[in-house]
Amino acid sequence: MSKLIRNHDFLSNRGGKLFVENVSAEKLAAKFGTPVYAYSELRIRENARRVKSALAFTPEISRGLIRSELFYAVKANNNLSILSILRNENLGADAAGPAEIELAQRAGFPKNKILYSGVFHSDEELKFGLKSGVAVNVDSLSAAKRLLKFGKPPLFSMRVNPGITGGKIRGLIFAGSDAKFGESVANVLQGYRLAKKAGVKKLGLHMMTGSCILDENYFAAAAEKLLAIAGAIRKKIGIKFEFIDIGGGLGIPYRLNEKILDVEKAVKLTVKVFAAGVAKFDLGNPKLLLEPGRFLVGDAGVLLTRIQTIKPKTPRQARGKAFVGVDAGMQTLLRPALYGAWHEILFAGNLNAKAVKKVSIVGPICENTDQLARDRLLPKLAEGDLLAILDTGAYGFGMSSNYNTRARPAEVLVSGGKAEIIREREGLKEIIGRQRVPNRLKK
Amino acid sequence: MSKLIRNHDFLSNRGGKLFVENVSAEKLAAKFGTPVYAYSELRIRENARRVKSALAFTPEISRGLIRSELFYAVKANNNLSILSILRNENLGADAAGPAEIELAQRAGFPKNKILYSGVFHSDEELKFGLKSGVAVNVDSLSAAKRLLKFGKPPLFSMRVNPGITGGKIRGLIFAGSDAKFGESVANVLQGYRLAKKAGVKKLGLHMMTGSCILDENYFAAAAEKLLAIAGAIRKKIGIKFEFIDIGGGLGIPYRLNEKILDVEKAVKLTVKVFAAGVAKFDLGNPKLLLEPGRFLVGDAGVLLTRIQTIKPKTPRQARGKAFVGVDAGMQTLLRPALYGAWHEILFAGNLNAKAVKKVSIVGPICENTDQLARDRLLPKLAEGDLLAILDTGAYGFGMSSNYNTRARPAEVLVSGGKAEIIREREGLKEIIGRQRVPNRLKK
Repeated sequence: MSKLIRNHDFLSNRGGKLFVENVSAEKLAAKFGTPVYAYSELRIRENARRVKSALAFTPEISRGLIRSELFYAVKANNNLSILSILRNENLGADAAGPAEIELAQRAGFPKNKILYSGVFHSDEELKFGLKSGVAVNVDSLSAAKRLLKFGKPPLFSMRVNPGITGGKIRGLIFAGSDAKFGESVANVLQGYRLAKKAGVKKLGLHMMTGSCILDENYFAAAAEKLLAIAGAIRKKIGIKFEFIDIGGGLGIPYRLNEKILDVEKAVKLTVKVFAAGVAKFDLGNPKLLLEPGRFLVGDAGVLLTRIQTIKPKTPRQARGKAFVGVDAGMQTLLRPALYGAWHEILFAGNLNAKAVKKVSIVGPICENTDQLARDRLLPKLAEGDLLAILDTGAYGFGMSSNYNTRARPAEVLVSGGKAEIIREREGLKEIIGRQRVPNRLKK
Repeated sequence: MSKLIRNHDFLSNRGGKLFVENVSAEKLAAKFGTPVYAYSELRIRENARRVKSALAFTPEISRGLIRSELFYAVKANNNLSILSILRNENLGADAAGPAEIELAQRAGFPKNKILYSGVFHSDEELKFGLKSGVAVNVDSLSAAKRLLKFGKPPLFSMRVNPGITGGKIRGLIFAGSDAKFGESVANVLQGYRLAKKAGVKKLGLHMMTGSCILDENYFAAAAEKLLAIAGAIRKKIGIKFEFIDIGGGLGIPYRLNEKILDVEKAVKLTVKVFAAGVAKFDLGNPKLLLEPGRFLVGDAGVLLTRIQTIKPKTPRQARGKAFVGVDAGMQTLLRPALYGAWHEILFAGNLNAKAVKKVSIVGPICENTDQLARDRLLPKLAEGDLLAILDTGAYGFGMSSNYNTRARPAEVLVSGGKAEIIREREGLKEIIGRQRVPNRLKK
C-alpha cells in the first residue's frame, strides 16, 4: 500500500486500484451500485479528534484558563449515522433549522449540546426551538423580539455581523454589508437588553466567520473583532457571555496543489487572541465555541460514479471536446454547477495510469450546466470505468435533488474492512412521494 | 377585476389582492401553508392549445402537406397531475430518463406517444427503454451501438449536434462544439447505417435547439440546418425519416419588459422552412416534432412564500442592505442561485402598493448564495406579508432539494374556483427517507 493522495490517508492505491479504508472502490460500486457516496468513519473521527486536540493542547485551554467546545454544523452532512459518530466523539450539534434539531436529537445529542442557529426565523421555528429546550441563536433583532415574546430559552444568543468577509468561493459571503447574515452591533445590543429584561440567565454571542478558509490568521482576526464587540456590549450593558462562538469556516483544500489549513496553528492563534480579549475586556470565563462542518466531514467522502457513455472528440468539429458521461450529475453533486467548484477526480480502477487527455466529466441531466469537471486532464478512460470524486463528504448528498426525475444516490459508511449502507438509493416510490392526482384528471 | 400583468391572464388583482384563477393567493397560502407552488390548470391547457393551434393553422399543416406532433418535455415539471393534463390535451411525452417513462405511463400516455431521449445513456437505461416499447432517441454513437446490440426499438432516433447555440442564460448551451449534447453528423450517419442493418423500420432525427429562446426566427434557422442534415443523410444512405424533431426551446419572458415570443409566428416560419426542406431534399413525409417544456408550464406556476423576518438597512453599515427573509429559498427554487435567473415578484397582499424600496429577497438557507432576488424595487413590506414569485411552473419543484434539512414544498393545482393539493408538503419522515443507522453507532 502506497500513500495515494496527500491529506487522504484513508484512501490507498493497491495494485492500481483505489481502496477506501480497506475496501476496494470497485467492491463498493458493485455491491451498492453507482452513484454512491462512501464515507470513511475513521477519517471523520480523526478530523473531529484533530480539532478537539488542537483546542485541548493550546496553552490557555490546557492550563484551564479558557474553556472551549466543538459543535458540528449539521447542514454539511445530516446523515443520521454521521451525526451519531460525531455525537459519539462528544461534539455538540449546530442546527440550522427545526428539522436539524430533530435529527440531532434522534442521533442522541442531549439538548444542552444542541445550538439552534439559522437565519430569517419564522415564528413557528422560534417556538419549536423554545419547545425543544435547546440554546437559541437568533440572526436579527426581529427574531430576538419574537423569541422573547414567545418564551425564555435556556440560553439566548445573537449573531452579529462584524463586517468581515472571507471564503474562497464567489457567492459565499457570510458577513459584511453584502451578507444576509447577522445583525448590526447596535441592534444586537438592543437584543441583549431585551433578553436581560426578560430574565434570560445565559447569553451567547455568535458570528458567521466565512466558508472554507485556509488562512490560519483569519480565525484569530475574526475572534479579535468579535471579542472587541463583546467588550463593547459588556461595557454598555454589563452582561457576561456564557459562550462566544466564532462560527465555522475551517477550510479543506479541494485542489491537489492547494494550501492545507494548519488547523493546530489556526486554533492556537485563535485561542491566544481569545484569551487576551477575555482579559482585556473583562469578559469573565466565556466558552470559546467553534462549529465547523466541512472540515469534519468534507474530505471523508468519496463519490463513486461509473462511466456510461464516452463521446470522443470528433475531427469534424474544430473545437470539439471529449465528453465522459457518468451516472452522477448536478442532481447528485451540485457544487461544480452552482459554484464552479473543483473536485479532484481519480480513475479508481487504474490509479497508476498516466493523465494524458483533457476531457469533461458530465452527468445525465439534459442541461449543459451539468458538468462535474471541465477540461480535466485524465488517463485514457473507457465505458464501464469507475471514477472517484474526492472531498464530497460535505454539501454533497445534502444538496442533491431529483432533477430530471433521477433517484438520489445511496450512502455507505466504510469502517475498517466493512462497508454498511446508511441510506438506500431512492426508487420511483420516493420520487413520486406524496403526490395525489385528482380523479377528474385520471380520464 | 383588472388585468394584472401582461401575458398572465390567469392572475388578477381584486381590490389589491392577488388571485390565481378565481382563488385568492392568501386563501391558498392559509389553506396549504407556504412555501407552495400553485399551478393554473387553465393556463397550462391554454399554452398547450396555443402551440397546437399554431401548428394546425399553418398553411402547410392545415392543407395536409405536413404532419406534426407536440411532445411535452417531462423534465420541466414532472408532477403526475400536470402530466395528466397534458396527456388529456393529447400531447406526447418527451422523457429524459427511465423514471420519466414510468411517470408518463402512470399518467396515461400510450407508449407510442412517449419518446425517450436523454444523454449519456447507461446500458440499463437503454434496456429499460427497449422493454418499455417506446421510441428511443440516443445521443451518441456509443449509445446507438449498445442499444442496437440489446434489441430493436419500434423507432430509432439520434440527436445530432448541428453546431447551433442559443438561449438567454449563460451556461445553458444545447448544441455547438462546447455542448455535451448530440453527436457529429459523421457519427450520426454511422448510427443510422447500423440501425438499417439491424432492421429497424422507423427512424427519427432529433436536435436540441436551445433553451428559452424568444427570437421567432431562431427555430426556422434551426429547422433549416436540421433538414439539410436530414437531406445529406438521405442522399448518403437513402433512408427516410418518420419524424424530424427540432426540440424545444420555446421561451417565456421572465422579465416584465422582456420580449414575448410570438409563438404563432415562430411556428409558421418553422413549418414553412420545414416544408420547403422536405421538398428540396426529397424527405418523404416526416412528422415535424416539437417538444417544449418551459413554454407549456413555466408561466402557469406561482410560488407563494411568506415573509418571516425583515432586516432593515442599518445606518451604521454604510453599504448595508435591507433583507427580506421568506420561507422559500434556493432549496425551493434554485434558478436564481444557479443561473442568476430573474423572476418577477409581486406583493400578493397589496398589488396596488407602489414600489418604493430596494430590498433583497432571501431564503432561510445558511448561505449567501440563497437570494431569490437581489436589490429589487418593491413596496414597503412587513413580516407576515405574502409574496408571489412568478413563472415558477418549470424547473421549480423539479430542481428543489432538502438542503439545510428543509422540507420540499407542497404543490397545488388551481382550476377555476377550486384548489386541489397535488403534492403534499414533505415531513421529517420523507427527509430521513431510507436511512439505516448501524446498531453499533446507536451507543
